Amino acid sequence: MKSVLHFGSFGDTAFAKQLSLAIEGKKVMVLLDENSHRECLSALFQLVDGLSEAEIVELPSGEQNKTLEMCEAVWSTLTECQFSRKDVLIALGGGVICDMGGFIAALYKRGMDCIYVPTTLLAMVDASVGGKTGVDFGPFKNHLGVFNEPSHIFFDDHFLLTLPEKEIVNGLAEMIKHYLLIGDREKLVQMRSADFIINLEQIEQSVAIKKNVVEQDPNEKGLRKTLNLGHTVAHGLEGFLLDKEPMDHGLAVAHGLLVEAKIAENGGLLKPDDFQFIEDVLSANFEWQKLKKEDLEDIYNLMLNDKKNDSAVPSMVLLTALGQPILDQKVSKDMFTQAMVDVNFV
Amino acid sequence: MKSVLHFGSFGDTAFAKQLSLAIEGKKVMVLLDENSHRECLSALFQLVDGLSEAEIVELPSGEQNKTLEMCEAVWSTLTECQFSRKDVLIALGGGVICDMGGFIAALYKRGMDCIYVPTTLLAMVDASVGGKTGVDFGPFKNHLGVFNEPSHIFFDDHFLLTLPEKEIVNGLAEMIKHYLLIGDREKLVQMRSADFIINLEQIEQSVAIKKNVVEQDPNEKGLRKTLNLGHTVAHGLEGFLLDKEPMDHGLAVAHGLLVEAKIAENGGLLKPDDFQFIEDVLSANFEWQKLKKEDLEDIYNLMLNDKKNDSAVPSMVLLTALGQPILDQKVSKDMFTQAMVDVNFV
Repeated sequence: MKSVLHFGSFGDTAFAKQLSLAIEGKKVMVLLDENSHRECLSALFQLVDGLSEAEIVELPSGEQNKTLEMCEAVWSTLTECQFSRKDVLIALGGGVICDMGGFIAALYKRGMDCIYVPTTLLAMVDASVGGKTGVDFGPFKNHLGVFNEPSHIFFDDHFLLTLPEKEIVNGLAEMIKHYLLIGDREKLVQMRSADFIINLEQIEQSVAIKKNVVEQDPNEKGLRKTLNLGHTVAHGLEGFLLDKEPMDHGLAVAHGLLVEAKIAENGGLLKPDDFQFIEDVLSANFEWQKLKKEDLEDIYNLMLNDKKNDSAVPSMVLLTALGQPILDQKVSKDMFTQAMVDVNFV
Repeated sequence: MKSVLHFGSFGDTAFAKQLSLAIEGKKVMVLLDENSHRECLSALFQLVDGLSEAEIVELPSGEQNKTLEMCEAVWSTLTECQFSRKDVLIALGGGVICDMGGFIAALYKRGMDCIYVPTTLLAMVDASVGGKTGVDFGPFKNHLGVFNEPSHIFFDDHFLLTLPEKEIVNGLAEMIKHYLLIGDREKLVQMRSADFIINLEQIEQSVAIKKNVVEQDPNEKGLRKTLNLGHTVAHGLEGFLLDKEPMDHGLAVAHGLLVEAKIAENGGLLKPDDFQFIEDVLSANFEWQKLKKEDLEDIYNLMLNDKKNDSAVPSMVLLTALGQPILDQKVSKDMFTQAMVDVNFV
């Protein structure tokens, strides 16, 4: 089932009415964390008919709580409150809450209705779209999960006003990735500028790019893999730093986009001019972190164990030009190390 | 993805070769319980190329082990052994092993390959076909799960020789249900006879009936609900007896088929002649159990809480004639009680 997307503001009664209609006649559970509880729930309560009687379930925020154990607690509550398959779970929060909410709904009685209300830029432009749901399993990110699209997704850019600056930056990396994939140089030039403002129109355009890819290849057999641009290196960095000084996903993706562009340039796939343009766009938006050279082996080995890898050498999506990604490019340890050195990350 | 079905015997090298081909080039985990380990694994090991290096994971047999906790142990092993999404899990066992194996494979890295080798009649004619996977959650049967079809199913009727008589009876109830649903009076007359023998051809015919229904309605929006014939009452009986003297699923379904036929007759939906025919077929194959009249309220309330029910009164699939099921028939407590009395179950 494809999701129905709604763009607007819960301050607007017509938009709130759409959510009222989507939950009409259903028992409702709202899944959230302490941040979305504090910043976002009251707006919904005031404007959406029927929500005030909802079951509110608050999970502690953060990736470390994206576990089966947390899901079991929610399944227990759904069961105790006798939710049926026709009732609905609303995931109100960032990527962790959306991913877990979708997973919980997909498994409960083999599938209950689910609605996403993403409250961070990253969740809006990435996690909420495309039907990937799941939880972490030990140190492995999204190791258990299923493809399950929510019936509706509500995008309200006013929630962005509640976010700290680093959360906005987190989402920007995925937006830049989308425009690199479709080769929209004009948009990337805008994003290089300090004047660039994220509004509902920008979110809608970015979502449309991902949606278009996902609809053509929902189960990630080919085209959808291009969305992994920047992510092979990003997952290596995130995994390595997890028990040290965790790196936000968006920042890791920004690092990954730069390193992978350098690998493409070093391999003669990408022209130096194109690499320079990509570096300019990224450097205008992100502050780079340095790693130690002796850590590179650990990072490389983490990329090897990535869920999406099934060979003895990590494979990456690389750009041959703006808008021209190619899949399954094998990257040796030497190629990775050289690129990390070249972009001054070690 | 639809499953490829194979009917034969692992004693036949051509049949064993089909399994060899299905696992070629893949790392293999075989999930089984102590019964299928003892009775069925050695035949596979001798005949199927590449299986001798498989990871063998034995779970304790029985419905009480159909839990998330058991799945977590298997996910840990898959992770430790670095199984990728392209590797394969073979579920070798009865309904519990097939349901759990399918569930474990569906969630691992959002879906790895899975093959079923059902070893009981019930698993062959029912659990293995149709893509329902899952685990129990506390006292709630199959409360967490997803739809996920294995890539291949291998049916070998020689495994039936390893089964105790009551396991054959268990599967017969679902076969009778299939022929009631399509109205095959001739087959039902054969099944009434003591001479009826279960062989590969009988299994193939019964599987074809379920497969046909499931393919028309994979997600149980309408037609597939007819397969619930006999099951509303069966789930009530099974749930009630679970912590007393557990009733096998097939035997519970046989009881359910009779009680639901009586409800249909009492309601003027089913002719007395048709009821009598159904009773004759069932009585020729099953030994009836008696319950206490004071237990009927508990049993009725369990039917109310069934996963598939979403109203204040249980609804059932009832027959208006052989081959003529109708959906969503509301059944009051009085109607249920009267039928239980009329068929001498209290």
